[in-house]
Amino acid sequence: MGKYLITGFSGFVSRHFLDYLESNKINSEVLGVDLLTPHFQTDSYSHVQCSFEKVDLLDKNQVDNLIYQFQPTYILHLASFSSVAFSWKDPIKSFKNNTNIFLNLLEKVRGLDLDCRILSIGSSEGYGNVTFEELPLKENHDLKPVSPYAVARVSQELLSRVYVDGYNMDIVITRSFNHIGTYQREIFAVSSFIKQFVQAKKNGKNEVELMTGDTSVVRDFLDVRDVVSAYYMLFDRGKKGEIYNVCSGHGVSLKDVIDLIALKLDMGVSVSVNERYLRPQDNRAMIGSNEKIKLEIGWSSTIPLEKSIEDMVAYWNSVL
Amino acid sequence: MGKYLITGFSGFVSRHFLDYLESNKINSEVLGVDLLTPHFQTDSYSHVQCSFEKVDLLDKNQVDNLIYQFQPTYILHLASFSSVAFSWKDPIKSFKNNTNIFLNLLEKVRGLDLDCRILSIGSSEGYGNVTFEELPLKENHDLKPVSPYAVARVSQELLSRVYVDGYNMDIVITRSFNHIGTYQREIFAVSSFIKQFVQAKKNGKNEVELMTGDTSVVRDFLDVRDVVSAYYMLFDRGKKGEIYNVCSGHGVSLKDVIDLIALKLDMGVSVSVNERYLRPQDNRAMIGSNEKIKLEIGWSSTIPLEKSIEDMVAYWNSVL
Repeated sequence: MGKYLITGFSGFVSRHFLDYLESNKINSEVLGVDLLTPHFQTDSYSHVQCSFEKVDLLDKNQVDNLIYQFQPTYILHLASFSSVAFSWKDPIKSFKNNTNIFLNLLEKVRGLDLDCRILSIGSSEGYGNVTFEELPLKENHDLKPVSPYAVARVSQELLSRVYVDGYNMDIVITRSFNHIGTYQREIFAVSSFIKQFVQAKKNGKNEVELMTGDTSVVRDFLDVRDVVSAYYMLFDRGKKGEIYNVCSGHGVSLKDVIDLIALKLDMGVSVSVNERYLRPQDNRAMIGSNEKIKLEIGWSSTIPLEKSIEDMVAYWNSVL
Repeated sequence: MGKYLITGFSGFVSRHFLDYLESNKINSEVLGVDLLTPHFQTDSYSHVQCSFEKVDLLDKNQVDNLIYQFQPTYILHLASFSSVAFSWKDPIKSFKNNTNIFLNLLEKVRGLDLDCRILSIGSSEGYGNVTFEELPLKENHDLKPVSPYAVARVSQELLSRVYVDGYNMDIVITRSFNHIGTYQREIFAVSSFIKQFVQAKKNGKNEVELMTGDTSVVRDFLDVRDVVSAYYMLFDRGKKGEIYNVCSGHGVSLKDVIDLIALKLDMGVSVSVNERYLRPQDNRAMIGSNEKIKLEIGWSSTIPLEKSIEDMVAYWNSVL
């Protein structure tokens, strides 16, 4: 039975990963760790024995005890300060969280010589500000990170490769593109938009006013359920030391996402750009190629954007 | 009058930088900071007003006070755990020192909006394990770091670029190749070899037994006096956000360096490889192109390898 250590457990990805294990009847033991207590029950699964511990992964002693005691066979390393916007506001905090935690984990697994596969979750942000001609981005494309967050993610990837080649550790690396889905916090654009739409509708309005950043940027949004199926399959079939894009292969502008939401809810929308949401610099367009993960791993995405939006609308309807 | 903040002050590069300012009669104020007290006098200069403070640059409060009080116009950021070998032994300590300190400095200069040029000292190690056909390495060559130390150096470089483009800060970036010269600590190969030769000679022997790592690796050694003249000229004339190789443009194997030392001292030598000095993986050959710094800055190297060795022999003769 697989023993999964999941860092950054209280975020929305790990919750969907648990749902994936459960709905696919994969008997497994999961220890989730985070600084924040999760907002969901951990004892509601029949195939997943799940527990949670509050751990500060920046504290090497806590990491050492954790790994020594649990002896994971898989580590799903989701812990990160995953907001690009935050990284511009507090680059030090963002960078430290996104690199030092990872090193603490690697060093203990190495020290114990554990037979453990680590999934290093990286980001499409590492590709940087590419031209439309360079799209879709393949894994062999140059990395030119343009935010502190993106630099941390590239560093994590480079460290992973050093640990694979230098210490023979079993690490599989992802470059995950934008995720969307239920339970996603509203600090992320799409979830925030949908929440505002749903709230306005509940308040009896038929139009919503959104304050946004630059909505002309194009992103490759993948439903979180497709993300976690990719992660599971990479644990199972990914090649050690290899990098895999996790993405839909399609691009859509934030503006078009807003229009889709408006259409779905049959509402009007007015968008005004607020300086507060603009970043010093940003990637104009991010679309990934998912050819490699399709060919090598046999993964494919199954949930279209419209379905993701529909489910997120239902989610916000249920919690607001 | 230029106000230089020099981090990693107690190392051998800063001492040569001071000598450069003094011998070129460049009136300047220098504040050196380090965890270790320097082994040299700071009050022996006529053109350089120099003082030293013991500062832990990992402590953000100490960095903040330091920069606020000194208000440097130049920062020569030499502080680092510059040993590749050490980074394999303690990757966490090496990585943290080589990235978090740099971020602490950048953030305070940014916070105060200081008119200050920062020289980010990077390393040729970032290029990684290249083939002989790819030599000499130009600045536009891919980076594929193969040690924890090298990853930290690449991260520093990527962060520098983000701070230049995103926050409009004035940072010039180097990729410095191997330095050699007087005062260099014996944890570095060439200095260690010369010390052992000189010690053996003083003990009346005419042959020395060296325990080494892989001596077939080829490196581009630059005399530290040429290094510091490059740094001074980059402060003066380097282009913001640009990357410059600092190197001789010539490669020599460690084995050939050993033979040169033996010839110089008219001694025999036997070399045995000790596992302890072997690294999990290493760059086979590192030779840089110095075309860019020559053309754009007007710098050139002036000290041949034989002269560096001669002076290092004299140095070890004087201290042993």
